[in-house]
Amino acid sequence: MDNLYYVLGAGVLAMVYAFWKTSWINNQDEGSDRMKQIGASIADGAMAFLKAEYRVLAIFVVIVACLLAFAANNQGDSWLVSVSFLSGAIASALAGFLGMKVATKANNRTTNAAQSSLAKALNVAFTGGSVMGLSVVGLGVLGVTGLYVIYSQCGFFSDTQKLIQTITGFSLGASSIALFARVGGGIYTKAADVGADLVGKVEAGIPEDHPLNPATIADNVGDNVGDVAGMGADLFESYVGAIIGSMVLGWAIFGDLDYVTLPLYIAGAGIIVSIIGTFMVSVKEGGSPQKALNIGEFGSSGIMVVVMYLLITKTVDTNAMGIFYATLIGLAAGLGIGLITEHYTGTGTKPVKSVVDQSITGSATNIIAGLGVGMQSTFIPVIIIAGAIVFAHHNAGLYGIAMAALGMLANTGIQLAVDAYGPISDNAGGIAEMAGLPAEVRERTDKLDAVGNTTAAIGKGFAIGSAALTTLALFAAFSEIIKSKLGESPFVINISEPVVMAALFIGAMLPFLFSSLAMGAVGRAAMAMIEEVRRQFRDTPELKAALEVLGKGDESSWSDEDKSTYEAGLTKADHGRCIEISTQSAIREMLLPGLLAVTTPIIIGLLGNLVNMGPQALGGLLAGVTVSGVAMAIFQSNAGGAWDNAKKMIEEGTEINGESYGKGSDVHKAAVVGDTVGDPFKDTSGPSLNILIKLMSVVSLVIAPFLF
Amino acid sequence: MDNLYYVLGAGVLAMVYAFWKTSWINNQDEGSDRMKQIGASIADGAMAFLKAEYRVLAIFVVIVACLLAFAANNQGDSWLVSVSFLSGAIASALAGFLGMKVATKANNRTTNAAQSSLAKALNVAFTGGSVMGLSVVGLGVLGVTGLYVIYSQCGFFSDTQKLIQTITGFSLGASSIALFARVGGGIYTKAADVGADLVGKVEAGIPEDHPLNPATIADNVGDNVGDVAGMGADLFESYVGAIIGSMVLGWAIFGDLDYVTLPLYIAGAGIIVSIIGTFMVSVKEGGSPQKALNIGEFGSSGIMVVVMYLLITKTVDTNAMGIFYATLIGLAAGLGIGLITEHYTGTGTKPVKSVVDQSITGSATNIIAGLGVGMQSTFIPVIIIAGAIVFAHHNAGLYGIAMAALGMLANTGIQLAVDAYGPISDNAGGIAEMAGLPAEVRERTDKLDAVGNTTAAIGKGFAIGSAALTTLALFAAFSEIIKSKLGESPFVINISEPVVMAALFIGAMLPFLFSSLAMGAVGRAAMAMIEEVRRQFRDTPELKAALEVLGKGDESSWSDEDKSTYEAGLTKADHGRCIEISTQSAIREMLLPGLLAVTTPIIIGLLGNLVNMGPQALGGLLAGVTVSGVAMAIFQSNAGGAWDNAKKMIEEGTEINGESYGKGSDVHKAAVVGDTVGDPFKDTSGPSLNILIKLMSVVSLVIAPFLF
Repeated sequence: MDNLYYVLGAGVLAMVYAFWKTSWINNQDEGSDRMKQIGASIADGAMAFLKAEYRVLAIFVVIVACLLAFAANNQGDSWLVSVSFLSGAIASALAGFLGMKVATKANNRTTNAAQSSLAKALNVAFTGGSVMGLSVVGLGVLGVTGLYVIYSQCGFFSDTQKLIQTITGFSLGASSIALFARVGGGIYTKAADVGADLVGKVEAGIPEDHPLNPATIADNVGDNVGDVAGMGADLFESYVGAIIGSMVLGWAIFGDLDYVTLPLYIAGAGIIVSIIGTFMVSVKEGGSPQKALNIGEFGSSGIMVVVMYLLITKTVDTNAMGIFYATLIGLAAGLGIGLITEHYTGTGTKPVKSVVDQSITGSATNIIAGLGVGMQSTFIPVIIIAGAIVFAHHNAGLYGIAMAALGMLANTGIQLAVDAYGPISDNAGGIAEMAGLPAEVRERTDKLDAVGNTTAAIGKGFAIGSAALTTLALFAAFSEIIKSKLGESPFVINISEPVVMAALFIGAMLPFLFSSLAMGAVGRAAMAMIEEVRRQFRDTPELKAALEVLGKGDESSWSDEDKSTYEAGLTKADHGRCIEISTQSAIREMLLPGLLAVTTPIIIGLLGNLVNMGPQALGGLLAGVTVSGVAMAIFQSNAGGAWDNAKKMIEEGTEINGESYGKGSDVHKAAVVGDTVGDPFKDTSGPSLNILIKLMSVVSLVIAPFLF
Repeated sequence: MDNLYYVLGAGVLAMVYAFWKTSWINNQDEGSDRMKQIGASIADGAMAFLKAEYRVLAIFVVIVACLLAFAANNQGDSWLVSVSFLSGAIASALAGFLGMKVATKANNRTTNAAQSSLAKALNVAFTGGSVMGLSVVGLGVLGVTGLYVIYSQCGFFSDTQKLIQTITGFSLGASSIALFARVGGGIYTKAADVGADLVGKVEAGIPEDHPLNPATIADNVGDNVGDVAGMGADLFESYVGAIIGSMVLGWAIFGDLDYVTLPLYIAGAGIIVSIIGTFMVSVKEGGSPQKALNIGEFGSSGIMVVVMYLLITKTVDTNAMGIFYATLIGLAAGLGIGLITEHYTGTGTKPVKSVVDQSITGSATNIIAGLGVGMQSTFIPVIIIAGAIVFAHHNAGLYGIAMAALGMLANTGIQLAVDAYGPISDNAGGIAEMAGLPAEVRERTDKLDAVGNTTAAIGKGFAIGSAALTTLALFAAFSEIIKSKLGESPFVINISEPVVMAALFIGAMLPFLFSSLAMGAVGRAAMAMIEEVRRQFRDTPELKAALEVLGKGDESSWSDEDKSTYEAGLTKADHGRCIEISTQSAIREMLLPGLLAVTTPIIIGLLGNLVNMGPQALGGLLAGVTVSGVAMAIFQSNAGGAWDNAKKMIEEGTEINGESYGKGSDVHKAAVVGDTVGDPFKDTSGPSLNILIKLMSVVSLVIAPFLF
């Protein structure tokens, strides 16, 4: 137990690091008043969304906590499960809040740093991301370890299994917040994006991120709530799920506390390694930022392998090497899926080039090609996941599967820092545009943004791979809990049983239904945004006049009157109204898919109970949603990625049959259609599926003792 | 056994009916010389494709037959399994040949009949379809019953189980041909369609089915090889699979020949009922053709229910009512899925209207809406299938699931007649256009084509529903065979086993991989066709000149020289070359997806054997591919259907926000993009998945005794 205080210490260290880096960011120069003002608008918008979201989620969380306490009490289990649940929800919300707070401070400071050099800008952006990364792992480790220490030390439980089972509530809390954050954030960001693009760029013909476009700020807020907070909540959930899944299995299988605390040690050590990794990221003037990020990420992975070897062999007696191999398999699987993701979505790769080539015959062939690439890209990642399952299990049983997930996630801290760095750079570019900074600044921020692409693809690979393995760990934990309830008789989920098969069918269908709900929500929210932007262009005379001036072309040809008309219009776009619309639509639309995810396992469990096969039916449902959800998530994310980069390649002048087309050509227009279709795929429904499968597993794990 | 001669008699009756109706069709007037010539071109093209396809398949079939005989011999099983396999392959090929032969005779005769009246045209088209329908059920019943009678009477087997197991080869033969026919036909029809549309309609601006377009004949050939032969092979496979699955289960579960012969009786009776049904389809001048088809289809379903009740209660002693209920559940499920299909894809329904509405903001939103509708449409059908599984099993065990499939398929004869009627009418319209007949003729054939829509949707519902249930029946049969091999120990496919879970992952991924292969194949084949049509327009001077005349607009404004130039061009399009390209591409491209389907179960079974879990791994694979394949099939088919009819609604002037747009508008162009994306979805990859899941089950069933 004493060693766990070191783990708690590591958690505290992560938070200290996060606060230290936050104040460092605060001390950086924000640049001109205009930049300050834009930065403040984005930050306010992001906070307004978080506040509105958390207000709704608070109600949900309180209701679920009461239901959990009631159900637990009813079954003679501990009501502390709802305390765990509340802690998990609060920790996840807090991680999102801290990460987004600093991300919205880092954005305009990155822009300002980019005025002097690329290296300085990288430093600011990456530091901003590292606060998100360390907050997530810090709060995760503090939460799980803290609950475990408190529950143990205060002697609330005589039975270790019940104690660990009670901690699973933490994972449920984290998952619930994650789902709503991912779905809500995904809807928000795409509604704002589509609104800004379709009316602003296409209809009114003004450049991206232009201050005359009322949806511009909302668009930039969206990058933060979708990509920073959404991704953070996603990985927080995987991270916590993998730790708790391993703890449950460690006790259920070995009945030995060493196997329960091992995941906590690894997580704690991962924090230290991640912090070391952040110091490895630095670039001298003229050096390669990509190389700097790679050194940080792969360097810390290397250290992590050594640390895990030492920890595992020191902590457990039986099969230490097997367990170590399992973590290695997990890490390798994550990297492998990441590289494949890069192959199917990266600029200049063969699959993306095929989408580019098909754009020449129009948007229909572009769409078919992108769908084809996305579907094909499921092949190798699924083989890798299947291989990881079999080999991790071969080396260390079910515990091995959980440890493989943990191996993938051990250095989440730095992984997430690299992920969050992307949207910060993206925002920095937007601010440069809106503040009318020289083109070279925008070029630097664009370079910064592009640099993170490979690492971001690898990050996506880890997110999907870890979601699959974490889900299986939670699934195995669910089976073990049912097994312990059944006593001696083995718990078998036999596919040949019609009830199981029926549940498998329903499970496999859910990702389709869920995706359709998410995409429908994006469509409706985008429509509301489109109408609002159109309304402002129509009903605000100053805006209308300024747009007309802008339409005259080059600024040098404007008369003095034109210039003053244009200046007058610049402040008239009602950004606040657009932010409000995005916020309200996102909050309203996230509820149905969210509730679907939470309630389906309960409904199927209860229906199954009618024929005394509740746990089996639930097992079938989980297996179905997991296997089809993983394939759908990869399909949608990669199709979206391929369309996105195909469009970029055409913009950069990639040749098709020896001819180059570029922006504004018919070929480019065809590619824009693909990119627009891909947006909700890759930023809303695709990544939400990662969470859906984890959430449904963890709901099952938590309700298992009450339902059956 | 004696009663089986009545069943054989019913099979013979079906063939007699088919030949009688064929000669009736032959005696109808083909119309003008031009119509004769066009009809002959289409018929020749279709036959050329079938010949080329069967030549390749013959090699495949002979190799597999040898391998089967060798494997069977090696295991001390009977080599007769390869005789069954050959019979199944030949029967399926023959059914395709007969159906297509008559369909390509009925098309121009329907056109000619449409010159005098709608009722006459309906009669010719439906009669053409009924030959396909009765050929399929006739050959299916003759094949299965014939093998059973011969194997029994000649005393080849002392062991009934081995006898029935040997007949499963028939199903494998049928499935193999079906897969290649569906995939090859699907590639053919879409390559020709896209080529004809993109270059002819969009680039050159000539009307659909115009004789100047070199891909026109190939396009019409495609309707026959894709929709007639493909659909026929699909239902032949389901039909035979459901019968054989029930026979295996009947013996394995009850050990009583009554339960083995019952499916044969039902199938035999279904033939008589289908023939009666065809006589119920007739329409007086001015009557509603839709009503006529409905009376035929629903009337025969009603009779079938009564007949099944009598047969089941007469034949079996134990749980006759339970078995009867299972067949009813199957029938109701098929109808239910059909109605839902109509709801999500029919002209004027709410989901299709939503796709229409989203077309106003361009093709991207049209695509997103269609994808959303397709994904959402998986919900209720999957719930229906899950319900049917549970309730059929509740009433009559695993045998009940097979009987539910059979209940759905009992009157396949008339069902397929209605299905095949659609493409015949479609072809008739094309011939009217090419022969330059008056507009009213084309209007009549269009009406005929539209009439079949609801019934066609219901047909699709039956195809998907029966594929799911047939697969489960085959899966259950596979389990029973493994069980009997294992002797006393129960055969359990436990999802909690990592090997099973890994196989489940791989299975769920296969429909994505398979779809991407199919779509890629369509893309490549379409590209080849596009290039050929462009080449002809460029390199054939007479064609080029005629196109220029056509571009001048209304014929009344042409000079005499124009007219003779135009006339000269009409015969210059090289239709033969386009037919050749479609044929070659389709044959070449069908091989990879086909081999994937056949070999994967063998590979996974062998890999599983390495850890002594071959049957379990294979079971996991089958479950995965089935549950995700059904969802993917519904998603793709319905998304394609919704896009198709959304385009039609816009063409017909459906209003969006009080305004109507129509052909040629931007809204229409956006909808055309959706329709083009939907084409390979609904006509190639979607329906191929039906076959994929059945084929993989039947491969497993046949190889089970050899592998394990």
